[in-house]
Amino acid sequence: MKSSVFRVERMDVPGGSEDIVRGGRDLFGLLPAALHGVERIGVLGWGPQGRAQALNLRDSLAGTGITVAVGLRPGSRSVEDARTQGFTEENGTLGDWLEVAAASDLVILLIADAALAAQHEEIFAVLKPGATIGLSHGFLLGHLTSIGSAFPEGHPVIAVCPKGMGDSVRRLYQQGATVNGAGINASIAVHADPDGHAWDRALAWSIGLGSPYTFATTLRSEYLSDIAGERAILLGAVHGLVEALYRYFRIEGADPVTAYVRSTEAITGPIARTISTDGLAAVRAASGDEELFDRAYSAAYGPARDLVAEVYDEVADGTELRSVILAERRLATRPMTEIGGSPMWSHSAEVHARRGTAPARIDPLTAGLFVATMMAQVDEFAARGHAWSEIVNESVIEAVDSLLPYMHARDVAYMVDNCSRTARLGTRRWGPRFQAAYEQIALPHLDRPADPALIKGFLDNPAHDALAAAAELRPSVDISV
Amino acid sequence: MKSSVFRVERMDVPGGSEDIVRGGRDLFGLLPAALHGVERIGVLGWGPQGRAQALNLRDSLAGTGITVAVGLRPGSRSVEDARTQGFTEENGTLGDWLEVAAASDLVILLIADAALAAQHEEIFAVLKPGATIGLSHGFLLGHLTSIGSAFPEGHPVIAVCPKGMGDSVRRLYQQGATVNGAGINASIAVHADPDGHAWDRALAWSIGLGSPYTFATTLRSEYLSDIAGERAILLGAVHGLVEALYRYFRIEGADPVTAYVRSTEAITGPIARTISTDGLAAVRAASGDEELFDRAYSAAYGPARDLVAEVYDEVADGTELRSVILAERRLATRPMTEIGGSPMWSHSAEVHARRGTAPARIDPLTAGLFVATMMAQVDEFAARGHAWSEIVNESVIEAVDSLLPYMHARDVAYMVDNCSRTARLGTRRWGPRFQAAYEQIALPHLDRPADPALIKGFLDNPAHDALAAAAELRPSVDISV
Repeated sequence: MKSSVFRVERMDVPGGSEDIVRGGRDLFGLLPAALHGVERIGVLGWGPQGRAQALNLRDSLAGTGITVAVGLRPGSRSVEDARTQGFTEENGTLGDWLEVAAASDLVILLIADAALAAQHEEIFAVLKPGATIGLSHGFLLGHLTSIGSAFPEGHPVIAVCPKGMGDSVRRLYQQGATVNGAGINASIAVHADPDGHAWDRALAWSIGLGSPYTFATTLRSEYLSDIAGERAILLGAVHGLVEALYRYFRIEGADPVTAYVRSTEAITGPIARTISTDGLAAVRAASGDEELFDRAYSAAYGPARDLVAEVYDEVADGTELRSVILAERRLATRPMTEIGGSPMWSHSAEVHARRGTAPARIDPLTAGLFVATMMAQVDEFAARGHAWSEIVNESVIEAVDSLLPYMHARDVAYMVDNCSRTARLGTRRWGPRFQAAYEQIALPHLDRPADPALIKGFLDNPAHDALAAAAELRPSVDISV
Repeated sequence: MKSSVFRVERMDVPGGSEDIVRGGRDLFGLLPAALHGVERIGVLGWGPQGRAQALNLRDSLAGTGITVAVGLRPGSRSVEDARTQGFTEENGTLGDWLEVAAASDLVILLIADAALAAQHEEIFAVLKPGATIGLSHGFLLGHLTSIGSAFPEGHPVIAVCPKGMGDSVRRLYQQGATVNGAGINASIAVHADPDGHAWDRALAWSIGLGSPYTFATTLRSEYLSDIAGERAILLGAVHGLVEALYRYFRIEGADPVTAYVRSTEAITGPIARTISTDGLAAVRAASGDEELFDRAYSAAYGPARDLVAEVYDEVADGTELRSVILAERRLATRPMTEIGGSPMWSHSAEVHARRGTAPARIDPLTAGLFVATMMAQVDEFAARGHAWSEIVNESVIEAVDSLLPYMHARDVAYMVDNCSRTARLGTRRWGPRFQAAYEQIALPHLDRPADPALIKGFLDNPAHDALAAAAELRPSVDISV
């Protein structure tokens, strides 16, 4: 990572240090210089990321003369919401996606993955000479590689990848507006840099989104950790775990609300909050039964690690991407079924209504299984050579500061049924695998003594130091959903 | 299919007729002529199929002068059992796999898929000129295609694919020894026929195994239906269904034994027996509650069909095979975990011990879900253009006459933990997906009225006629495990 505009700092991480750039509203005045000639930014797509990024960039660049415009596909149902937010044809900030792409100096591609796979060539064909191509995750690189294609020559290709859902990217930015900024950490990557300004443009984009800190990765590394992470601890494993635990507690005799509280509510509420504020080891201490926590951790770590490795292998191999493309082909003629009918979710409203009437408890069994799965992902990502900033953001911070709070406000099934199609398909694919691993392998072995080597591996894990370093750069406000 | 030795008959199936050849011990005298110069058959591998096929072929060819020899890899743990069964170095019927391959006129490849993928070139390199290559399923073709390779020129390549597990292939052959034969139906395929005798050799091999009737397919079609079928109704879906139902009944208040009986025991016992003897529609009538059966059928058919289509797509695309190869790579250094720890299986012994003390009941809810899944596979295979013999053997007959009786004798988890590695990996991959579909989509919608179009589609399904035609060629004895 390099910059002629912003100060690149070294953040200590286990085994060395990593380049990062700290964000903040005091840096917004530097954005035009860092964008090096970008006068018009086109954001294609108005999904959660498109919406959040277009709004944040417009706010951050207000008064600079740099325009942010939104491009939508013909017939897009998002046009009304975009207009409500002030992107209009009349003021020249709303238009057909290809026209917006053709008129922009930085074209940020935030349409759905399947659409991007099908139509990237049309976009590439209309770009201005030298226009910068911007991505928010590595999916398109994975797709281009799989079909033996590549990005067009002569264009800078950069990525800014917020480590949180679009809703959080906007929400934290707004909630931190009165202090010196808040937002979601982001990784950036430079895939092609023909004019030498790609890093600065990526940093400007990231700081403009409100990222408390920005770290470097590659498109490939981002793709692997992002797609594998959402299939594992960020979404798939969480869904599998709460389905398994709810039935487990019910069969053990708990009533539905208690089973819900001990499984889902414990994870999305106090466990997430404790990790966010006090770190991973604090969950064990706060669980009230370290001995049970340790047995649960020991029973779950192995099968969870096996599954994270399997997810990672399939993402790296391209089979996961093939499965998404095959699914989209099947689903062209029928809607995707929804999973929200699972019985536990009928108790969401009742559990949510009770909040505040009793202290939120961390169930030690639930905590042991959850933290074991989180550590399995941390350790697998470390074994695969990811940078520590990427590991802890993609395995811990994104979970506890973005996704779990959102699930706490809605519920887990709602989140699955309403997230991006790639994430949704992946969660439906891997969530049941995690559920089965907990039900068939972890929970039946709870009576075995804890494995001291596994517990030591947890307590001494380098991730704690990496998280502590990241915590010093935390957003200036906590998210409130 | 053609033969200069056996009588090829036409079997009426929906929409036309298919070539078949009826088996029987009275035809064993014709085997030498049909084998066209094969004097030595080498069976490589002593898994369930290798063992069963070597024993059946040796028995069927006794007195003809044609030798059956077994080839094992160095250090194979199967050598003792092979010797016990009379295959010995002393009598020249047991040896190193490559030496047996080099000395045989028909080389039947029944080693594990992963070993075949890794070592087929070594085998091909030692073959006699013109020796026939024999397979029992299409895996190797799938693998060769995926790596851009092919079978060696100049060798007949044939397949005989029993529609049942190896244990059943041997057991039914022995149990029918005193009547005119019994065994498991088989499909045959001719992939290369340089000397014009490939069909006859395949028919001789199939009749020698005891197949009541033999039907024609292609290696590709066999591969697709075999691999997809074992991941769906033959194994994966059964495992997913009983895990889902057991927990469902437990949460509804059933004690563990009752929940086991209503889920697993109902499927592997009376439902399988009823389908085997009286056909699919008879299960609905015997369930005692057609209205509930119809609602369960209607709730499950859609999600089950979605999943069978997904399995089929991934098998056809090669992603399923990639996942097996990736898994074998990960598992090179550690054992595969077992799923038999799931709580329901601790009640197997008690349920088995009670058999005979109460009439075996078909639970209408369980029956509706199971039959809907079976029909989803039938309909998906039909939509993909498979021959009716292949559809009903791979979706119904293999289930009710081979696999379910075996699961009834052991239990479902035991079967999963002890089947071929390709089947085991596939079941662990897809079983949880079926479980989740029943839990999250089918069971929550049981209160919806039955869908008359789906029920009509079941009652009028062409599969009933195809099954009736196959039933006329049923084995002369029922299997007893």
